[in-house]
Amino acid sequence: MDCIAIEEIRALKHRYLRTLDLKIWDEFADTLTADANASYGSPSGSRPLDFTSRDEIVGYMSESLSGNIITVHVANHAEISVDGETATGSWLLEDTVIIPDHDFLIRGAAYYNDTYRRENGVWRIASTGYKRIFEAKMSTGALPGFALTANRWAPVA
Amino acid sequence: MDCIAIEEIRALKHRYLRTLDLKIWDEFADTLTADANASYGSPSGSRPLDFTSRDEIVGYMSESLSGNIITVHVANHAEISVDGETATGSWLLEDTVIIPDHDFLIRGAAYYNDTYRRENGVWRIASTGYKRIFEAKMSTGALPGFALTANRWAPVA
Amino acid sequence: MDCIAIEEIRALKHRYLRTLDLKIWDEFADTLTADANASYGSPSGSRPLDFTSRDEIVGYMSESLSGNIITVHVANHAEISVDGETATGSWLLEDTVIIPDHDFLIRGAAYYNDTYRRENGVWRIASTGYKRIFEAKMSTGALPGFALTANRWAPVA
Repeated sequence: MDCIAIEEIRALKHRYLRTLDLKIWDEFADTLTADANASYGSPSGSRPLDFTSRDEIVGYMSESLSGNIITVHVANHAEISVDGETATGSWLLEDTVIIPDHDFLIRGAAYYNDTYRRENGVWRIASTGYKRIFEAKMSTGALPGFALTANRWAPVA
Repeated sequence: MDCIAIEEIRALKHRYLRTLDLKIWDEFADTLTADANASYGSPSGSRPLDFTSRDEIVGYMSESLSGNIITVHVANHAEISVDGETATGSWLLEDTVIIPDHDFLIRGAAYYNDTYRRENGVWRIASTGYKRIFEAKMSTGALPGFALTANRWAPVA
Repeated sequence: MDCIAIEEIRALKHRYLRTLDLKIWDEFADTLTADANASYGSPSGSRPLDFTSRDEIVGYMSESLSGNIITVHVANHAEISVDGETATGSWLLEDTVIIPDHDFLIRGAAYYNDTYRRENGVWRIASTGYKRIFEAKMSTGALPGFALTANRWAPVA
């Protein structure tokens, strides 16, 4: 077992998730291979979410998540197998999306299947995608006593 | 510190949780020793949940979670101690259970105390159980704007 | 990469979170250096939450969380860098606070930035603090069908 590669891949996935939710797009792009594939399909989405390059993935994310949209993507339960310069990983995803301007909240869970590739000693995500266990939406506008007491992305008055 | 054993036990627990929530009962059974003990007691349960063999555990889970029941069991905060061919582990559990046919949702948290045993080089769970921090139920039927937008277990029309 | 130090620091953070939510204050104190700094500021708080010693941190926590208050602090996405006898770490926090006597629930997420110091071979938290992604409050009193079915801290009748 290659414990160092496993640590590196775990930290890679954590960096991908942190830079996604904190919207740090340069660092997010660097977690992906140039030819990365991604499939983030979700029943609540209005268009297919399949991408075949880093530029497509970063372009979509940076555009669709800009503005006053809160996302928290949490990955757990890593099962990573390393085979030389490539690796595979399974992760549980729990995601929360809050769109304050529409009083809208989504919660869900899914299992990711990823592949990773080591390029010049650096691990990157070569493909990622998931299959949902569930996804639920609700309206925060009518939720009793609901209020956002912090929002990193709230527009400055 | 035996980093390889810790990695193996972490992956074992992750496999146990993945196969539980994805209802892959053959692979789930293989995460347990034949004489595994489990204690999943919960105030909302209507009967005691103590088991003294792998067959009992797998039988109960595969029966009670079959059909249109969504579960997400998330374990975190591993503190694992290895002592030769046995090990102990503490984990935080957060669980979500959704029963769409009854408009019912449960959320909770607990701390697991597990023991593990290595048999012919393979780690398995020898005992597992937890003590709750909290458990809460709510009705999704009256939750404002609530709808499941994905459900892996929904009956096919 | 120092895999052993990373395992030790991960387990340290997990012990900090477990003893916080289980209110085991002696063991909680032992996860901090005597001169530990902490900044847990939150918009919903009524006073600044900045501390400059272990005694201050433990005193505040053990006082403010005593009684019938449920907390679940979950940390994920560790990115740990070790440099000799010091280290840094980034973690995602998701927290749930339930105050049953006020029918009150808080959910939030944030990214921690920690530093760690090894003293006589033992890693401890030297500083910790976070910046929120979001925090939301809601009233459980009017939440449809809401009931606590387990509460570790419920007063004994």
